Amino acid sequence: MKKEIQIQVRYHECDPMGVVHHATYPVWFEMGRTELLRDNGDCYRQLEESGLFLVVSELQIRYKASARYDDVLLLKTTLEEVTRVRVTHSYALLRGKQLIASATTVLACVDGKGNVQPIPEHVAKIKV
Amino acid sequence: MKKEIQIQVRYHECDPMGVVHHATYPVWFEMGRTELLRDNGDCYRQLEESGLFLVVSELQIRYKASARYDDVLLLKTTLEEVTRVRVTHSYALLRGKQLIASATTVLACVDGKGNVQPIPEHVAKIKV
Amino acid sequence: MKKEIQIQVRYHECDPMGVVHHATYPVWFEMGRTELLRDNGDCYRQLEESGLFLVVSELQIRYKASARYDDVLLLKTTLEEVTRVRVTHSYALLRGKQLIASATTVLACVDGKGNVQPIPEHVAKIKV
Amino acid sequence: MKKEIQIQVRYHECDPMGVVHHATYPVWFEMGRTELLRDNGDCYRQLEESGLFLVVSELQIRYKASARYDDVLLLKTTLEEVTRVRVTHSYALLRGKQLIASATTVLACVDGKGNVQPIPEHVAKIKV
Repeated sequence: MKKEIQIQVRYHECDPMGVVHHATYPVWFEMGRTELLRDNGDCYRQLEESGLFLVVSELQIRYKASARYDDVLLLKTTLEEVTRVRVTHSYALLRGKQLIASATTVLACVDGKGNVQPIPEHVAKIKV
Repeated sequence: MKKEIQIQVRYHECDPMGVVHHATYPVWFEMGRTELLRDNGDCYRQLEESGLFLVVSELQIRYKASARYDDVLLLKTTLEEVTRVRVTHSYALLRGKQLIASATTVLACVDGKGNVQPIPEHVAKIKV
Repeated sequence: MKKEIQIQVRYHECDPMGVVHHATYPVWFEMGRTELLRDNGDCYRQLEESGLFLVVSELQIRYKASARYDDVLLLKTTLEEVTRVRVTHSYALLRGKQLIASATTVLACVDGKGNVQPIPEHVAKIKV
Repeated sequence: MKKEIQIQVRYHECDPMGVVHHATYPVWFEMGRTELLRDNGDCYRQLEESGLFLVVSELQIRYKASARYDDVLLLKTTLEEVTRVRVTHSYALLRGKQLIASATTVLACVDGKGNVQPIPEHVAKIKV
């Protein structure tokens, strides 16, 4: 399963070097994951209403080139693996054919108290 | 009632002009309000545990000069007025003797559903 | 001159009350201004390449109702006035027919050293 | 070389789950790196004035437990390695004795155009 979304860089997301601050990327990756989930007739909002949350337990980013204000980027999010305890996504962020960054995240499922729970069926059944 | 706190500008808070982005200031003013409340033996966390929230209903900022990365600023927060329906604060942000920005906020009290509620006694009794 | 843009609330923009943090709104208003400028064959990026910057000198926001994660909002930005020294915009943020917030900003023009400059011709000639 | 700094969680840094948003952590790690550099009689500001920048080329975070509004955390930043082309730091974020997150970053040095440059002498000579 894959999902592509377009991201236009906001002024607020750039730092004094004139480029996107590196802490902005995880926010975009979260947007990519959300839109991928939405395509399955579900979204984070519904998940949270059931009292469960997918939280990021691991994040790895490789920054290859800088992005600038007003750039229009393409974010490709891929669901790589779903097990009973973790959901793994990978990300490729592109400007045209240039790779700006690549990343992976691992999500775990927790209840309202932060205790780890099995991945819900309606998420776990998603075909990779 | 007044409270002074020191703020050291974070790199992440600056934009491509090399100065603090104007949307950063409301975050600092919120920190000033929080610390002022804390001095009264209370803090936002406790307030929220009682199911009530102080939310910003009005914000006005005048930007006088720019602040830069690593600047150490002084934020003076003053509780101006507490009535049964609103709490008014004013703010002066300084670098040395230079005024960087001045501001006022008006807070209202709401319950978990966003409905306006009277200001709680333990807040309303605070001496201005 | 008016411009309407759609804004989908990001998870990252919401706070522990489950609603959009009030410091997020100025970021959206900046997006509205940028898109309005773009419609005039110009954009902030070009302006900055000429060594001049439009900076926010005044900001006023009235928060009327809360917005939540995943909400799709409509931001209406209106250029209210352009003089030799200031550019005034107003903003209405809506969810359907409900007014979430209204705001105004005043921009001033500065050079790279932060000194106030006359508004550039190509901005000043914009018809309100 | 190590550096410890205290971080008090800001309201703005928390998300609707009531915990610190995962994109906040890289901002804190940047603060830790900056303070560690400062202890060597230098800081990012000076580095940038020389036309060179240390940029994050790799980031890896393991989130172990959640942090909440008003928590006072301890961030331990360690300079692990400096070579001619990269600077590696590790991070441990703690609340009391509990590990909240661990992380590593790899920095590269670039000039104003984003081209990779050798690490400057005054940085490279820092004893690990």
